[in-house]
Order: sequence, then structure tokens, then C-alpha cells
Amino acid sequence: MNKNNKDENSNGASCIFCKIIKGEIPCDKVYEDKDFFAFLDIKPVSDGHLLIIPKQHIVWIQEADDETVSNIFKLAKKLIIAIKKALECDYVQLSIVGKDVPHFHIHLFPRYFDDKLPMFPTKEYQGGKSKEVAQKIIQAL
Amino acid sequence: MNKNNKDENSNGASCIFCKIIKGEIPCDKVYEDKDFFAFLDIKPVSDGHLLIIPKQHIVWIQEADDETVSNIFKLAKKLIIAIKKALECDYVQLSIVGKDVPHFHIHLFPRYFDDKLPMFPTKEYQGGKSKEVAQKIIQAL
Repeated sequence: MNKNNKDENSNGASCIFCKIIKGEIPCDKVYEDKDFFAFLDIKPVSDGHLLIIPKQHIVWIQEADDETVSNIFKLAKKLIIAIKKALECDYVQLSIVGKDVPHFHIHLFPRYFDDKLPMFPTKEYQGGKSKEVAQKIIQAL
Repeated sequence: MNKNNKDENSNGASCIFCKIIKGEIPCDKVYEDKDFFAFLDIKPVSDGHLLIIPKQHIVWIQEADDETVSNIFKLAKKLIIAIKKALECDYVQLSIVGKDVPHFHIHLFPRYFDDKLPMFPTKEYQGGKSKEVAQKIIQAL
């Protein structure tokens, strides 16, 4: 993936997820409607790990209009409830990262209180650094 | 935290995030409206790591009504755009986990293509396992 993480073909013609939606690449589909598609990740963190994607080829969440954002997360909630019921996990983690396939996707995967998955390393702000960072974000809002 | 991850006081009286909303515990606030509150995580993965919370004390996303889900993620999108603009990161990761503070919260934190944060370990489905798991989730939908 190139530095700016953009699919070189912005209409998604070369995008793996667009090919999955079209049925050109097989998948274990869990849900589909006119706007969204959900299927099992082939390299799951845990059994039942799903990806939810918009059918429209966009790369980042911030490219989605507010209606799409609203609807995809309402669908995520519905799928979280179904995963929890189906697989009796303790909870379901939701994550959006941006480094793998350049087509906006939400990861949902079952978690267990004793699963010992790694935590991201954290740090602490020194001096007035946190106030400075907060101000920068407030000014950009 | 006990096994079912519930705040023992379900009205949030003992909840750290409820105390932050009320101003009883200081924080670096970035955003507030009648329903939501966003502030810097004191143990950030990266500078600018925010938590977005509903003011209503709920523990899990699936306890939020659809309107709350819709609105909190539209706010998350707005904050992602602001973080990216303010801090010039490559992208912003969004995650909802469930193991720390028992008050529903969305993590947003700046990511950089070269930040080398750990990936979760993944596995592969064997035999017909993926079809079996997909069917279980479909039946629970």
C-alpha cells in the first residue's frame, strides 16, 4: 500500500472487498442489504470475526456521509448482539484500523475476559502537553 | 471488575467517567453537548488519544438506543476529522473494547504508518468451521 493509503483505482476495480461484494471472490457472507455487506474475516482474531463494509468503495470513515455512518453503526450494533448470542462470548470488540485493505471496514470480533489479547502500549503526558494537544483538537473542530 | 463487567452501582454513582462528566474528577475536555462528552485519555496510545462517552451511564454499546448509536458515531467522525487536521497523523484508529472502565466509550487515537503498534494475533479456520460459525451468526440475526 502506498503512503497515502489510497486505492490507486479509486472506483474500486482492483479492490478485494469490491470483488467480494460482486461475488468474484468467495466469502462466508453473514449479512447483505442494498448499502452494506458483512462476512467472516478469513484470518480471524477469534471465531466469528466479521468485517462490515459499505458497498460504495470509500477508503476512510471520514469519506462516508453522515447517513452512511449512522446506518453502518446501527448495523454493527445489530451484528454485535447476534455474535454475542450466537457464540456466547463475553463481549464483542469493534475496531476500525486503516492499514490493511483500502476499503472502509469495521472489524467485530468476539472477546473473552480471559483471552489475554495484547493491549496497545500506553504512555503518560508530561508537563502541560495534554492541554496543548486538547487545544489543538478543539481549534480544529 | 467482576466477571460480567457490570458497574455494581448501575446508576453510575461510583463510575469514574460519570464523575468526569460531573467535573468531580478533572480532565482535558475536548467536546461536550447535551448527550456526549469527549476528553483526552490520561494513558494515551498516542498524543491526542480521545475517549467519547455518552452522558447516560450504560456499560455496553448494545444497551444504547439506535439514535444514540447514530449520533455518537457521527460525532466520532467529526472528531476523527479534527484529530487528523490538528495532529497531522496518517489516520485515526477507532476502537471499542470492554475490559477497562464499565461505561460505554469509544477510543480514537492517531496512528502513523510507521508506528509499529502490535497487531492482534490471527488464525485460520480449519475444515468447514467458518461456514458453521457464519450460520450460527445468521441464525441469531
